[in-house]
Amino acid sequence: MKGMDVYGCIEAGGTKFVCGVGTGPDDLETASFPTLSPPATVESVAGFFKGARLKAVGIGSFGPVDLDPQSHTFGYITSTPKAGWRQFDLAGAVGRALGAPVRIDTDVNAAAVGEARWGAARGLFDFLYLTVGTGIGGGAMANGAVVHGLTHPEMGHIRIPHDLSRDPYPGGCPYHGDCLEGLASGPAIEARWGKPARELPADHPAWALEARYIGLGLANWVCTLSPRRIIIGGGVFQQAQLFPLVRAELGRILNGYVQARALLEDMESYVVPPGLGNRSGVLGALALASA
Amino acid sequence: MKGMDVYGCIEAGGTKFVCGVGTGPDDLETASFPTLSPPATVESVAGFFKGARLKAVGIGSFGPVDLDPQSHTFGYITSTPKAGWRQFDLAGAVGRALGAPVRIDTDVNAAAVGEARWGAARGLFDFLYLTVGTGIGGGAMANGAVVHGLTHPEMGHIRIPHDLSRDPYPGGCPYHGDCLEGLASGPAIEARWGKPARELPADHPAWALEARYIGLGLANWVCTLSPRRIIIGGGVFQQAQLFPLVRAELGRILNGYVQARALLEDMESYVVPPGLGNRSGVLGALALASA
Repeated sequence: MKGMDVYGCIEAGGTKFVCGVGTGPDDLETASFPTLSPPATVESVAGFFKGARLKAVGIGSFGPVDLDPQSHTFGYITSTPKAGWRQFDLAGAVGRALGAPVRIDTDVNAAAVGEARWGAARGLFDFLYLTVGTGIGGGAMANGAVVHGLTHPEMGHIRIPHDLSRDPYPGGCPYHGDCLEGLASGPAIEARWGKPARELPADHPAWALEARYIGLGLANWVCTLSPRRIIIGGGVFQQAQLFPLVRAELGRILNGYVQARALLEDMESYVVPPGLGNRSGVLGALALASA
Repeated sequence: MKGMDVYGCIEAGGTKFVCGVGTGPDDLETASFPTLSPPATVESVAGFFKGARLKAVGIGSFGPVDLDPQSHTFGYITSTPKAGWRQFDLAGAVGRALGAPVRIDTDVNAAAVGEARWGAARGLFDFLYLTVGTGIGGGAMANGAVVHGLTHPEMGHIRIPHDLSRDPYPGGCPYHGDCLEGLASGPAIEARWGKPARELPADHPAWALEARYIGLGLANWVCTLSPRRIIIGGGVFQQAQLFPLVRAELGRILNGYVQARALLEDMESYVVPPGLGNRSGVLGALALASA
């Protein structure tokens, strides 16, 4: 594979980097490395791609990332609290190390691109990809292109109703307290119930509350973006019992107002897991490279 | 004007229809009629345009409207409670009456198109137009095109935090109670304070509360759409004292998380009134016609 003309991809996470070479889901070869300092991490990346003749490299990165092509810090990680990574020129460093053109977007935007190309959003021009794990993030496509603007979206930080009498947990977001991420991310679940989400049984009250919060977020995105489908990935949604709960909450919250068959009669194909499983991000980065 | 090759436009509201002919803001001639039954209203429309050689007609309509080009009810008003208008083929009736091609979108989407063409969003590919009046609605552009999808957005119906100890008013939305529209539309202000918004003095506590709710909505849209500018029109925002209050709330709510100069240092040119005043809608319909 490495001797052929192929694409490279990097899912750049705060904990690990997943690198891959290939042309699509059927031939992708990957490896992952822990995220260390920027120079050590880029060295691991360069080692993985050594000898590959890459037409281009796609990066789906943790953020915030400067994605303004006019900016002199385009492709930089910006205000992350992660030691050493603040104002690091990730796209530039990877491009120099690999000698290939680089295309970069956020991890969730890349995942959306991957799901559009090979996954659960094939043929759709308007949809939402959401991930619920260590954080909550969303990538949207509208009119067939990823939604950007002033910066990239930060969907996890929307504010939703928080009924303190049902859920006295104040929320864990250092910026906003009880924004959606502060209430419904994996760490919020752990802080509220005293155990990691994956250790809570399927009938634990945590899941009804989680579904309520995610349902409120989805309702806001339905009202704002009118997506044709919503794909939910991430570690917390490995809990498959969440999907029916979230669909029911979304229907209850919208209460029949948005007149669309998908919402009124076919919620099972409206709110779905990723078609690419846990490879949405890395395949999305590949899709960016080969766009 | 009516003898020339010009465009026609219709701002189709639940209370009145504004019709116009022209080519842009400098030569637009308008007239308005009360919204009666569909046949009587279309007759008034036909009378206004009589003799005009229209290249095309744009309609910015109250909703919900079926905007799916694949649908056999494309251009119909759908589930409105407004007597006689439910399932009325507005685009078809206007096209037949005027013998001209029709382009239709929602009133707020049309207003967004108008602001992009001639108003406060010139040169911007990603922005939000919001109206706060009898209802609350938003039209967004992303990547230079209006955001649609499953249906059109219904931004007024997002859910936001509602602190019942500060504001015991339960909200007036028949579908959702205390969604944003239920808490912050003109009728909600009147129901809460016992007087129409326009009769409340500029130092009335109504405005701080209104700014809080609209600020929460804007924060959610900043996190979701990352607009490069937010334009707020509609009757309630004729109260100019709301703009500084809303800008301050938006800054407080985002709390520095979204690192963008516009939000951190230049909120005055980020949250602005319409460049076209109260003509965003009708000029937007004209922009649809001549797109």
